Amino acid sequence: MTYPKLRVGLIGAGRIGRIHAETIALHVPSAIAVGISDFNLSVAQEVAGKYGIPRVTTHSEELLSDTSIDAIVISSPTETHADLIIAAARAGKHIFCEKPIDLDLSRIDSALAAVEKASVKLQVGFNRRFDANFRRIHEAVAGGEIGTPHLLHIVSRDAEPPSIAYVKSSGGIFFDMTIHDFDMARFLIGDEVEEIYATGAVRIDPEIGAAGDLDTAVTLLRFRGGAIGTIDNSRKAIYGYDQRAEVFGSAGAIATGNAYRNEAVISTAREIKRDLPLNFFIDRYATSYIDEVRAFVDAVLNNRPVAVSGLDGRIPVAMAAAAYVSYKENRPVKLAEIAA
Amino acid sequence: MTYPKLRVGLIGAGRIGRIHAETIALHVPSAIAVGISDFNLSVAQEVAGKYGIPRVTTHSEELLSDTSIDAIVISSPTETHADLIIAAARAGKHIFCEKPIDLDLSRIDSALAAVEKASVKLQVGFNRRFDANFRRIHEAVAGGEIGTPHLLHIVSRDAEPPSIAYVKSSGGIFFDMTIHDFDMARFLIGDEVEEIYATGAVRIDPEIGAAGDLDTAVTLLRFRGGAIGTIDNSRKAIYGYDQRAEVFGSAGAIATGNAYRNEAVISTAREIKRDLPLNFFIDRYATSYIDEVRAFVDAVLNNRPVAVSGLDGRIPVAMAAAAYVSYKENRPVKLAEIAA
Amino acid sequence: MTYPKLRVGLIGAGRIGRIHAETIALHVPSAIAVGISDFNLSVAQEVAGKYGIPRVTTHSEELLSDTSIDAIVISSPTETHADLIIAAARAGKHIFCEKPIDLDLSRIDSALAAVEKASVKLQVGFNRRFDANFRRIHEAVAGGEIGTPHLLHIVSRDAEPPSIAYVKSSGGIFFDMTIHDFDMARFLIGDEVEEIYATGAVRIDPEIGAAGDLDTAVTLLRFRGGAIGTIDNSRKAIYGYDQRAEVFGSAGAIATGNAYRNEAVISTAREIKRDLPLNFFIDRYATSYIDEVRAFVDAVLNNRPVAVSGLDGRIPVAMAAAAYVSYKENRPVKLAEIAA
Amino acid sequence: MTYPKLRVGLIGAGRIGRIHAETIALHVPSAIAVGISDFNLSVAQEVAGKYGIPRVTTHSEELLSDTSIDAIVISSPTETHADLIIAAARAGKHIFCEKPIDLDLSRIDSALAAVEKASVKLQVGFNRRFDANFRRIHEAVAGGEIGTPHLLHIVSRDAEPPSIAYVKSSGGIFFDMTIHDFDMARFLIGDEVEEIYATGAVRIDPEIGAAGDLDTAVTLLRFRGGAIGTIDNSRKAIYGYDQRAEVFGSAGAIATGNAYRNEAVISTAREIKRDLPLNFFIDRYATSYIDEVRAFVDAVLNNRPVAVSGLDGRIPVAMAAAAYVSYKENRPVKLAEIAA
Repeated sequence: MTYPKLRVGLIGAGRIGRIHAETIALHVPSAIAVGISDFNLSVAQEVAGKYGIPRVTTHSEELLSDTSIDAIVISSPTETHADLIIAAARAGKHIFCEKPIDLDLSRIDSALAAVEKASVKLQVGFNRRFDANFRRIHEAVAGGEIGTPHLLHIVSRDAEPPSIAYVKSSGGIFFDMTIHDFDMARFLIGDEVEEIYATGAVRIDPEIGAAGDLDTAVTLLRFRGGAIGTIDNSRKAIYGYDQRAEVFGSAGAIATGNAYRNEAVISTAREIKRDLPLNFFIDRYATSYIDEVRAFVDAVLNNRPVAVSGLDGRIPVAMAAAAYVSYKENRPVKLAEIAA
Repeated sequence: MTYPKLRVGLIGAGRIGRIHAETIALHVPSAIAVGISDFNLSVAQEVAGKYGIPRVTTHSEELLSDTSIDAIVISSPTETHADLIIAAARAGKHIFCEKPIDLDLSRIDSALAAVEKASVKLQVGFNRRFDANFRRIHEAVAGGEIGTPHLLHIVSRDAEPPSIAYVKSSGGIFFDMTIHDFDMARFLIGDEVEEIYATGAVRIDPEIGAAGDLDTAVTLLRFRGGAIGTIDNSRKAIYGYDQRAEVFGSAGAIATGNAYRNEAVISTAREIKRDLPLNFFIDRYATSYIDEVRAFVDAVLNNRPVAVSGLDGRIPVAMAAAAYVSYKENRPVKLAEIAA
Repeated sequence: MTYPKLRVGLIGAGRIGRIHAETIALHVPSAIAVGISDFNLSVAQEVAGKYGIPRVTTHSEELLSDTSIDAIVISSPTETHADLIIAAARAGKHIFCEKPIDLDLSRIDSALAAVEKASVKLQVGFNRRFDANFRRIHEAVAGGEIGTPHLLHIVSRDAEPPSIAYVKSSGGIFFDMTIHDFDMARFLIGDEVEEIYATGAVRIDPEIGAAGDLDTAVTLLRFRGGAIGTIDNSRKAIYGYDQRAEVFGSAGAIATGNAYRNEAVISTAREIKRDLPLNFFIDRYATSYIDEVRAFVDAVLNNRPVAVSGLDGRIPVAMAAAAYVSYKENRPVKLAEIAA
Repeated sequence: MTYPKLRVGLIGAGRIGRIHAETIALHVPSAIAVGISDFNLSVAQEVAGKYGIPRVTTHSEELLSDTSIDAIVISSPTETHADLIIAAARAGKHIFCEKPIDLDLSRIDSALAAVEKASVKLQVGFNRRFDANFRRIHEAVAGGEIGTPHLLHIVSRDAEPPSIAYVKSSGGIFFDMTIHDFDMARFLIGDEVEEIYATGAVRIDPEIGAAGDLDTAVTLLRFRGGAIGTIDNSRKAIYGYDQRAEVFGSAGAIATGNAYRNEAVISTAREIKRDLPLNFFIDRYATSYIDEVRAFVDAVLNNRPVAVSGLDGRIPVAMAAAAYVSYKENRPVKLAEIAA
């Protein structure tokens, strides 16, 4: 069959860039990666060799000026995202960009304006929306299975804290970790948050506190429609990556558990037990990384709306900013204060 | 065997009073109910007849002045508790009193002072501490099974809202419903709360709002030791009484589910399902109502500390007051503001 | 209230006799125990003292000739059951008899004939029929929730093997242990078994083999209506008493788990675990021991059919005999060979 | 990287052949499919086009005589397997062959003799051994986690019966369906079966009976080491593909559940429920189809023993033959009768 394939350029060959390269090579027959760039040439070459990508460069501009390329996948460091989106939009490329777009709302706004002006598509990499568990909650709420939502509880705990170097450059727990849960909260409830109260603590590692960050946080969300949500974050769940949610509504509730390598239950003289859940986000969300890129390619090829828009990329950053102010000043903060 | 039995007088023959009468008659061989009082004589007579209680009266004073009575179980309306505690203490009776002691902290303090002066025992009826699930969490935390606690989440949802008449006289959701969860939070974490932020909504029934109350509430607790807790309350869980908790700590987590009438799982062409959880607090907490009275009788007969002290009765009232102020003023409130 | 109470005489004050005495004293307001007999007078006296039973004797005949007694509960050793049933029937008493009625079918037939002639009621103590889990399966099958039953699987494993002395006098695993499961199979499927194939092994304790018995057995049942069942037995499940069943049918399946002291799930660095199931049959089946006696008393007072008839007592003995022949001769055995 | 890849020829482009073609194209970087044959040329061409396989033919001999091909994957109809194994072995190709090798033991023996003579590797396609759930049981038993195995129970139920045409050519339920469970029984217990008793019924569709087959079967296995197993088979589980197992041993038990598309639990006014399990064997065993081919390629490239040997392919056929005789003659049948 000779339908046209979407021709993709990849910017960034780090951990996430590799995942996207593998996805396009193995799991998206309707796309082909034709070039990859990274500041580190040998890293780009290794990924290109592994997945048969013909063009390798250290200059992303070369991919942007390649008129044979239809779409760009941006997996470079966060501080480069906004400028790359602007450049790619001006070059007429459709864009898949890892989250966050930026930590600064005005830079996000510039990027979104460029996208709008160029009439290209932009999808932001909130991959968890494609996870089977969270998608099922979304469907239940959207489809009315549990009635009007009243309460939301998200548990989001990493298995291990990141390095202190990473913590220092991360923008803090609300921008780096809770941001996923802010997106998830909007996705699950299908409504916007109007007020946030956030608190937190340093419970895992004093070094994280010394770096000016928290490792434990609880955020309370008030949605416009009246639902109330809470988010539990910890940087270290000793039993492994813990990613769950529950929505309670007028007609019922839906709750998800973690993902496991097997379903075996072992009964011994001491306990009834099972093996630990999948411990690494790449294992837990393996399918969602594939499905988000499939959805993006599909949206471009068929000119359909993307699943996670530029605005979906902007709002969680505003929520993180509100949470940060709330924590610092120990008071509820309206999103209107931040995002006006 | 002819060991001495604790001779008990029961004040109040309503719903909870009957439970205590049945408990003493059937499940506490070391106690005997020798009298019961209620404003409504026929109600008291019916309970007395059913459980073989020889003395029936409409005047609780008669029981307090009966020198053959060792201990009093107070199940009368809340507004009578403090005065009855004071009178019973002065009469030298040990006291089991339903919660709350009172909604006014100064009246509670008067009652506790009377108890202290008389050197009698006072146990408050926070029965959920005796529930097997919550007790297991308490043991896990106290025994270090999950390390230092970092996060707590309590789900506490009724199956049906109370009558509007009840709502109007209840003191509001924080005093009437969340008060159990405030006690539970202290019991599970083994620490005191220093700051509370509470929010809420009317989601179930506008009549509840018209009565000046909420039917949905979320409360955030900061403990002295650094743990953070959230409490989800709703007056109406359509699938039934929903009472769960989870504590997350440095060495693991412990979470409990609801209680069910059976463990059967049914697979059909449409779903894999089980029957609804126990729907009524008297069914769900049947054993805990027995065990709290056993513990009280045991504490008196063996002169041991009671399981739920007068102070344990006072603090949740202060927490409810703080939550109420927090909700009204939409700001975090330190317990020291209230309970000083 | 002054409705007449059923006046009960208890024969046997051993482990099960005590349970029935406690049940009548505490949990069946419509019955009263007026006498108890045991070969061991002091044992009978102790139980009588504890539960306020006025008459104590070493001669069961005294209870049978007491015209004030309406019904007899037989909890004496198996070899006395048939004669006691006959004597009680002749004395016009209604009878609750522990299982098995006897290990010999002709003696059972004599007992049942006496019961029929006297027109008294006889209920046999297959208490597990009153367990909430097994009753739920029964209801699902009887009510058509899973369609026509095709397959049955029963898991029935003790926590600890009995003493070798007990093994020697027990009649063997099929008569002593599987007999419960034979009754359960009939109760769950609602049909009669026509052929049995049984096999077994000595896996737990060679002493049990030396005593001529098995400690592990698997029995395959063919029901008249075409359903097929298997029963897994072991004398020693190291994780505790294991009592489950599953019925699979044309419209679905229903399966039950074990019973647990609590619903807590603990996540640690090594596993996700819960505490062991209830380990002792008296804990696991506590409610069923109460409910079977309530049902018996109710059947007598209201002249309704008993829940577990004499024939229900006879058939599992025939099934055990067939299983034993099958095991000995290693061939399928038709029940008609045994029970004709 | 330029390590040599295993060059594979695919015989058969039907349902399973496509799965293997996709696996080699997408999931086994160390192998490459260089040719594919099928009686139906257009089917072979379609698969070749989709996965970039250069050579397409209707004659499998062309692949066998292609000296550039290292290994053959046989996914053609069962009756061709033995001859193809013999031809491939003579051509010096390593062989991956779908199960069963044949339904006739002497033809299997001829094939295995050819393999042995040619000193090539042969792996049989019992893919379920690579399923994470069953592998976990295998590891638990092999690693002593549950002590010495005493009892095994396998539930293996299809979601839908095959067509009557398929039933007629399938060799019957024991050869077509239970054969997987015979392999699984050996794999899980790590021991050989010495005696089988099988029974069955027509419960789902009288047409299956008219075709001389059963749609419901229960098989009892006695292992040499003393363990006893049962296998529950049905052609139609209305709630979906049902594939579970439990092994009980001296130190505990291990049991597995089904696989689900999500872990969401939904609470409604009527029940607590979850979505149905994965309904199709290709979904349920997707990963195992990949992992078995990876293991085969790895065994060839590194000259290691294959995971599922020719003998592993032969023994379940002998077990099916014994089960069939047992069913026909309604007696336990020793494997030695069949496989001598």
